[in-house]
Amino acid sequence: MSMNNLGIVKRNIVRADRAAVDKLSRFGVATIHEAMGRVGLMKPYMRPIYTGAYLCGTAVTVLLQPGDNWMMHVAAEQLQEGDVVVAACTADNSDGFFGDLLATSFRARGARGLVIEGGVRDLKDLTAMQFPVFSSAISAKGTVKATLGSVNIPLVCGGAVVNPGDVVTADDDGVVVVPAAIAQQVADAAEARENNETAKRQRLAAGELGLDMYNMREALAKAGLKYVD
Amino acid sequence: MSMNNLGIVKRNIVRADRAAVDKLSRFGVATIHEAMGRVGLMKPYMRPIYTGAYLCGTAVTVLLQPGDNWMMHVAAEQLQEGDVVVAACTADNSDGFFGDLLATSFRARGARGLVIEGGVRDLKDLTAMQFPVFSSAISAKGTVKATLGSVNIPLVCGGAVVNPGDVVTADDDGVVVVPAAIAQQVADAAEARENNETAKRQRLAAGELGLDMYNMREALAKAGLKYVD
Amino acid sequence: MSMNNLGIVKRNIVRADRAAVDKLSRFGVATIHEAMGRVGLMKPYMRPIYTGAYLCGTAVTVLLQPGDNWMMHVAAEQLQEGDVVVAACTADNSDGFFGDLLATSFRARGARGLVIEGGVRDLKDLTAMQFPVFSSAISAKGTVKATLGSVNIPLVCGGAVVNPGDVVTADDDGVVVVPAAIAQQVADAAEARENNETAKRQRLAAGELGLDMYNMREALAKAGLKYVD
Amino acid sequence: MSMNNLGIVKRNIVRADRAAVDKLSRFGVATIHEAMGRVGLMKPYMRPIYTGAYLCGTAVTVLLQPGDNWMMHVAAEQLQEGDVVVAACTADNSDGFFGDLLATSFRARGARGLVIEGGVRDLKDLTAMQFPVFSSAISAKGTVKATLGSVNIPLVCGGAVVNPGDVVTADDDGVVVVPAAIAQQVADAAEARENNETAKRQRLAAGELGLDMYNMREALAKAGLKYVD
Amino acid sequence: MSMNNLGIVKRNIVRADRAAVDKLSRFGVATIHEAMGRVGLMKPYMRPIYTGAYLCGTAVTVLLQPGDNWMMHVAAEQLQEGDVVVAACTADNSDGFFGDLLATSFRARGARGLVIEGGVRDLKDLTAMQFPVFSSAISAKGTVKATLGSVNIPLVCGGAVVNPGDVVTADDDGVVVVPAAIAQQVADAAEARENNETAKRQRLAAGELGLDMYNMREALAKAGLKYVD
Amino acid sequence: MSMNNLGIVKRNIVRADRAAVDKLSRFGVATIHEAMGRVGLMKPYMRPIYTGAYLCGTAVTVLLQPGDNWMMHVAAEQLQEGDVVVAACTADNSDGFFGDLLATSFRARGARGLVIEGGVRDLKDLTAMQFPVFSSAISAKGTVKATLGSVNIPLVCGGAVVNPGDVVTADDDGVVVVPAAIAQQVADAAEARENNETAKRQRLAAGELGLDMYNMREALAKAGLKYVD
Repeated sequence: MSMNNLGIVKRNIVRADRAAVDKLSRFGVATIHEAMGRVGLMKPYMRPIYTGAYLCGTAVTVLLQPGDNWMMHVAAEQLQEGDVVVAACTADNSDGFFGDLLATSFRARGARGLVIEGGVRDLKDLTAMQFPVFSSAISAKGTVKATLGSVNIPLVCGGAVVNPGDVVTADDDGVVVVPAAIAQQVADAAEARENNETAKRQRLAAGELGLDMYNMREALAKAGLKYVD
Repeated sequence: MSMNNLGIVKRNIVRADRAAVDKLSRFGVATIHEAMGRVGLMKPYMRPIYTGAYLCGTAVTVLLQPGDNWMMHVAAEQLQEGDVVVAACTADNSDGFFGDLLATSFRARGARGLVIEGGVRDLKDLTAMQFPVFSSAISAKGTVKATLGSVNIPLVCGGAVVNPGDVVTADDDGVVVVPAAIAQQVADAAEARENNETAKRQRLAAGELGLDMYNMREALAKAGLKYVD
Repeated sequence: MSMNNLGIVKRNIVRADRAAVDKLSRFGVATIHEAMGRVGLMKPYMRPIYTGAYLCGTAVTVLLQPGDNWMMHVAAEQLQEGDVVVAACTADNSDGFFGDLLATSFRARGARGLVIEGGVRDLKDLTAMQFPVFSSAISAKGTVKATLGSVNIPLVCGGAVVNPGDVVTADDDGVVVVPAAIAQQVADAAEARENNETAKRQRLAAGELGLDMYNMREALAKAGLKYVD
Repeated sequence: MSMNNLGIVKRNIVRADRAAVDKLSRFGVATIHEAMGRVGLMKPYMRPIYTGAYLCGTAVTVLLQPGDNWMMHVAAEQLQEGDVVVAACTADNSDGFFGDLLATSFRARGARGLVIEGGVRDLKDLTAMQFPVFSSAISAKGTVKATLGSVNIPLVCGGAVVNPGDVVTADDDGVVVVPAAIAQQVADAAEARENNETAKRQRLAAGELGLDMYNMREALAKAGLKYVD
Repeated sequence: MSMNNLGIVKRNIVRADRAAVDKLSRFGVATIHEAMGRVGLMKPYMRPIYTGAYLCGTAVTVLLQPGDNWMMHVAAEQLQEGDVVVAACTADNSDGFFGDLLATSFRARGARGLVIEGGVRDLKDLTAMQFPVFSSAISAKGTVKATLGSVNIPLVCGGAVVNPGDVVTADDDGVVVVPAAIAQQVADAAEARENNETAKRQRLAAGELGLDMYNMREALAKAGLKYVD
Repeated sequence: MSMNNLGIVKRNIVRADRAAVDKLSRFGVATIHEAMGRVGLMKPYMRPIYTGAYLCGTAVTVLLQPGDNWMMHVAAEQLQEGDVVVAACTADNSDGFFGDLLATSFRARGARGLVIEGGVRDLKDLTAMQFPVFSSAISAKGTVKATLGSVNIPLVCGGAVVNPGDVVTADDDGVVVVPAAIAQQVADAAEARENNETAKRQRLAAGELGLDMYNMREALAKAGLKYVD
């Protein structure tokens, strides 16, 4: 194990199976998160830059230095069709590390979007391009290119561990990370869960109570719930 | 007075007069807040989950435990046509206590929307349903059903006291609580205020200054305002 | 130099050259900020109240007291066609200092929008009017008219110094302040920068890497970047 | 019920029984909060201005306007020996509403301390006086005396409802409000709880596990806990 | 006026008169802020790193880049006996720009302390040295030396404008900036204010009410204050 | 790889070498963080509950559910002499998961302290015990024991990855995590760094400039730094 993982670009990463990614792309973040056992969710401060933004793909990770987006350009070369760039910074920083030029480049190289704990800019253009971005900040402030970070190392973004090749899915509810090794398993569990929800929705829409549908009354009484008038 | 109000569901609550609620529903939150003497407003971190969300109804209150939405299901049974669910938690918690299944259930039982100091999820579905929600957070994270809270007790939500049966109105400007006992009185005051504003708007649009329209010049001079070149 | 600049209205201010303002209005905030050497940007908590809000004009500044919008009415009289009101408060305060009546008045007097470190209300009406506002908060809470502030003094808004007559531009990326004396110079630099970006965008869209386009490989190697498999 | 409770000073309030207050003063906030069934706690942003600050007394409440401490002077006249001033503001505001002069006055009138959702100043003097203050902010900024609030109305401070006469206790862990009507009952419950804790502490100090002392092993196994190597 | 003020070190600055600085050092921040007409105060998030930290001196200003403290070393050379370093960053950044080595250097060059919108580290050593620091953050994270900022340009720190040579005073209540040109005038006003407060304190300690001492009763009645039982 | 790591207690973990831990305990967090190449630092919101708190030990990790400290008791049984408990929660939650009873138990089992992204209480007692705690919140609010988390799984705490057995060191500057496999290597690097700093400190104290000691003048000039008068 090396002491230092700054200044490194890992070229060969194991991406999650394409079929599993495709299957996961049919489900929302809340469903996937539940299907995975309620782990892997980024913190709620990671928000889409426009309503309805959505992405699902395999992670190429980037560790940035505050005020510096040099590694974004290094990452562009490592992108393959279906990837999502996941960027974190060594310190909280709202600078605009990413804008429409990088989005143009990333898209040309096959990227499906960006998840970044940090700031982005050029919102009008990114929205017009429908290039999905989930970030912790928005800022017009540009960055320098002076200090090394790394590409395709494991990192923490939005409070979640992301390994290169993991599946990252994001929608209006947040961002979830599915480890590559269990992508298919989670996709299957999500499917089962979704099927189950359709029936529940119909019963609830008809006025049936969750209290009855989920058989909660006995447990509530046992826990001591009291009805008063 | 009981020492403990956890684990209680109050079934019979006195809801604000329906006619008063209907009249209040004609006015915005800012107008109602002014009409009530500038009290009863929730803190500004309570925000709509989609632009244009609006609700007005009588409060059914829910006290939740962090990470636990059990009481939401208990509350569903207490809903009547025209109610709004107002939920608070015993601690700040951004978990997604509410999503499209509960929204389906609440709507089927007559609810007009939700105000929650806590998190919600399934934003895409809730928006498609046009189910209005005002919350302090958005999160895909689900919750357990393990610990009792209460339904229809007085509580504090977004820094405002809410009693069951109070009128709650929310729009893009925020959320305001009108005690049931003064709902009609506030509605009348709001109407008077709104009538007054239309005339003012026309005069201002014609270029008249507030300085003149409100006769401010003398008071400003007395307070010591100095014009310099 | 006077010790106290509260209670003052400066009537004659030197506004930036109209042609320079018009030229600046062709460019986004990120471009202007870069063109000016990356200074003058307000902090990222200054946000538009509706997506797509945009303004560019000459600053009339207003220093408010917490919970008090008296000076807004005083400022209205000082407005000229093409101005933007820039308001700050002597303390952090989210109150709704501004709503649709003041917007009507400001527009009638020639204002193009408002930038305020503080709260605003009547979002529905302001959006319908397409009156652009960039603020640090949204709140239905109204204000009193009891304590003096000042109009057209230099102030700090969103962490940036604003002098009366400066050019203020705001879009989805943030708010930038261009000192009146260098407005033309910055506009020219922004134009040069924008022309340069179009060519870059096309090359990146064609798949060329920033690594090559900006000749970064040598500098990265010199800094010690290592590619591993 | 009146529509407007601004501009009111209630002179006669029912204070909690002195013996109950004295008994409550023997227990910490965490113990009292548990004894009361885990309700009545202010949010964690209410912090002491010096380490070790402690207060326990009967509430005289003050509703302030942002940037205005006029009502603090009105409240001073209503103080009796053993009172604690609890102040809230109609909007979030960090201004220094309170300093060493008011502390001198409050102490001379019998007050044991201050709890304020707002700012305070003169920390060095307040600490030297050992005048306990729990606040949401610290700021040197002074306030005006121009707009009415109220004294001895029910209010929300730090997210908790406070009625005049309630017992308020605060220490390094936070601030808790005990309704006057149940002060004795809560004090008795706190005493029982504290006695119980001493024995537990000794057993834990001797190395006994909470798993055994609280008989948790069966419940954990039933919930599905798995031990792996 | 130059478009760009990055990469500049101004060597000759006009420091406030030493006698005025010395006189100001006799007063607390709250008193100076009042004496100056309630302007020039930094925002309340600027806090001392240890209780009782105090500084008063003439500002040498430093504009930093995020994650980069190169300019701190450039600033050290510009220090004179009695200076205070005031540092801001082009973006919010909590990195530890400053620690015990720089403190040793700054002190050796005559500095009386540091005010920084940014992070600092080595708290144990700084406290042992009794080197006063007021900062917006504390972080062990170090910084690089790669990108230029500036020294002795006007800047905004903690929301207040600071010009090189201004007097900066900080204590437990916050940080205030006194323009060099009015330092003596403010010191005199502070002295007058302080003399006035001593008499007031004695009267309040004797139980006299502010209501009477400040003759507030008539104004309160006129504003509509009502006493009820 | 398992899909779900909730409800698991790993009993056998590989702790970092004791001699390496002991050597690391001689250095501060800032030094260790630098020695490790500036990785592994928790975010700055992790703060000590009393000034001067310090800990260094091997991590036993605990994943908690919001409002629930059941797993803390499970973790107690896994402690060995020299361990530090590192606790995270599946959602941001300020509840008081830990107090003096658990501290008594943890200490009796050999623990040297606690690092928790979450709240703690009983500050007075913990301080009297000199039981070091670094937390993201302080709250008197207690927790239930109803929902499973896990013990000794890898987790993210304060934005840093912590594996069971890693070395965790914390002081007034923050919290740093050293992977067990490189503990000796980092300790050696920290020692080298510290030796180097002593000499630097003496030169700086004698008035030598960092500009000269670090040979910065050429690089600054090359970067374009301009001195003006």
